[in-house]
Amino acid sequence: MPADAPVAGLDRIELLRPLSADRRAAVARQCRWRRFAPDEQLIDHWADTRDVAFVVEGRVRVLSHSAGGREISFSDVEAGELVGEMSALDGRPRSASVVALGEGALIAFLPAKPFQSLVTAHPEVAMAMMLRLCDKLRGATDRIMELSTLGANNRVHAELLRLAKRGSRQGASAIIAPIPVHSDIAARVSTTRETVARVLSDLTRDGMLERRPDALVVRDLSRLEMLVEDVRGGA
Amino acid sequence: MPADAPVAGLDRIELLRPLSADRRAAVARQCRWRRFAPDEQLIDHWADTRDVAFVVEGRVRVLSHSAGGREISFSDVEAGELVGEMSALDGRPRSASVVALGEGALIAFLPAKPFQSLVTAHPEVAMAMMLRLCDKLRGATDRIMELSTLGANNRVHAELLRLAKRGSRQGASAIIAPIPVHSDIAARVSTTRETVARVLSDLTRDGMLERRPDALVVRDLSRLEMLVEDVRGGA
Repeated sequence: MPADAPVAGLDRIELLRPLSADRRAAVARQCRWRRFAPDEQLIDHWADTRDVAFVVEGRVRVLSHSAGGREISFSDVEAGELVGEMSALDGRPRSASVVALGEGALIAFLPAKPFQSLVTAHPEVAMAMMLRLCDKLRGATDRIMELSTLGANNRVHAELLRLAKRGSRQGASAIIAPIPVHSDIAARVSTTRETVARVLSDLTRDGMLERRPDALVVRDLSRLEMLVEDVRGGA
Repeated sequence: MPADAPVAGLDRIELLRPLSADRRAAVARQCRWRRFAPDEQLIDHWADTRDVAFVVEGRVRVLSHSAGGREISFSDVEAGELVGEMSALDGRPRSASVVALGEGALIAFLPAKPFQSLVTAHPEVAMAMMLRLCDKLRGATDRIMELSTLGANNRVHAELLRLAKRGSRQGASAIIAPIPVHSDIAARVSTTRETVARVLSDLTRDGMLERRPDALVVRDLSRLEMLVEDVRGGA
C-alpha cells in the first residue's frame, strides 16, 4: 500500500461490510493501490486485465466510444462501490473503459482469483454481488427500451426526470444541483450535445425548466413525468 | 407436481447441477409445475409475482412492448436454463414478460425465498448465478452500443453475423437453419419487419446471402464480418 492509502480504506466498500475488520485488512494487503488524476483511465477497454477495482475515494465513469469517437457512458460509480467486476468474475475481456472523474480517485485493485474466492466464501457478499448485477441489468434493460422506443428528445426528457427524482423538492419543483453538463447527459442517453442543448432550451422556453446560477429547476415535476409517460406507455 | 412432470425434471437445469439428487428432488417438491401452450405467457411484466421459472422442457422468450405495441425481445431461454431470476433475487417488479415458444414449455416455478436460500447456500450455484447475470449484462451492453452507434440496417447485419457464427460452416459460407423469422430479427435489434426484409433482400441481390428452402446461407462470412466491423469500429 502507498503511504497515502488509508489502512482501513476498504472499510468504506459497501460490498465488503459483511467481512470482519481483520479479513478486510487482509484483502487490503492483497490489493494494488493507486491514485488516479481526473480524466485518467484506470481500466482500458482493450487491455488484457481482469482485476476488480474498489473505488476507495473519488468517482469514476464507465464508458465506451463509437467508431466515430462519440462517448457512450454506462454509469458513474461512487466511492464505496466497485467497478470491473464482470471480467474479474467471468475472465472475459473488459466490456468498457473506466476513467476517474472530478478530483480523481483512489483505487484498490484486487486480482480476479482472490476476488472470486472472497465472493463465494461469504454468502452475504455473494448475494450483495448478485443484487448489484441485477441492478445494473435492470438499468441496461430500461436503456435498451428507451433506445428502442423513444426518440432522442424524449430520452433527454427521461434522463432529466431521473435527475429530478434524485434532486431535492420545493413544492411542485425539483432542484437538480449542480447543473448537469450537456455532454454528460448526451453520453448517457446516446445523443449529441447539440440535441441536449436544444431540448433543454425548448423546455426553458415552455416554462418547464428554469436555469439558476447553481441549479437546474424542473418547475413542475408531475408535468415532466406525464410528458415522459405519455410517450413511454407503461403500466 | 402434476402427473406429467418428470420426477427428476430439475436434473436438466444446469444451475442446479452442483446439488445432490436428493436436494434437487426436495427443490422439485417446493416448485409449482405447469405446462404452457405455444405463445402462452408464463410471466406477466405487470403482475406482482416474484418466482423464478426453471425451463424444464421447451423454449421461452423474454420480451417487452413499446407504447405503440411493437415487440422488443431480450433473449430466448432454452430448456435447462431459468428465467425471472432478477425479481426472485431482488424482490423488485418484473422487467419484462416471458412467453412460451414453439411446442410450448414445461415450467417449474420456485418462490423467491427458497430460491434465495438455494443460491446462497451453495457457492458453486452462487458463482454460476453471477456468471449468468454477467453474461446477460454483457449482451445488454453490446446491444446498447449497437443501438447507440449503428443504424437499423447495420444492426440487422450484426444480428445476421451472430446467427451465422452460431450456424454450421461450409468453406467460406455459414448456414443458418432453420430460416429465421423476419419479425424475430426485428424484435431483437429493435427495428421493423419491413427493414429486415429490405436489408436481407439487398444482401441477396449483392450475392452475400442465398435463400435455400430450409436455410439462409451467408456466402462469405468474412465479408459480412468486415461489413459489420467497418461500421462498429472495435479493437
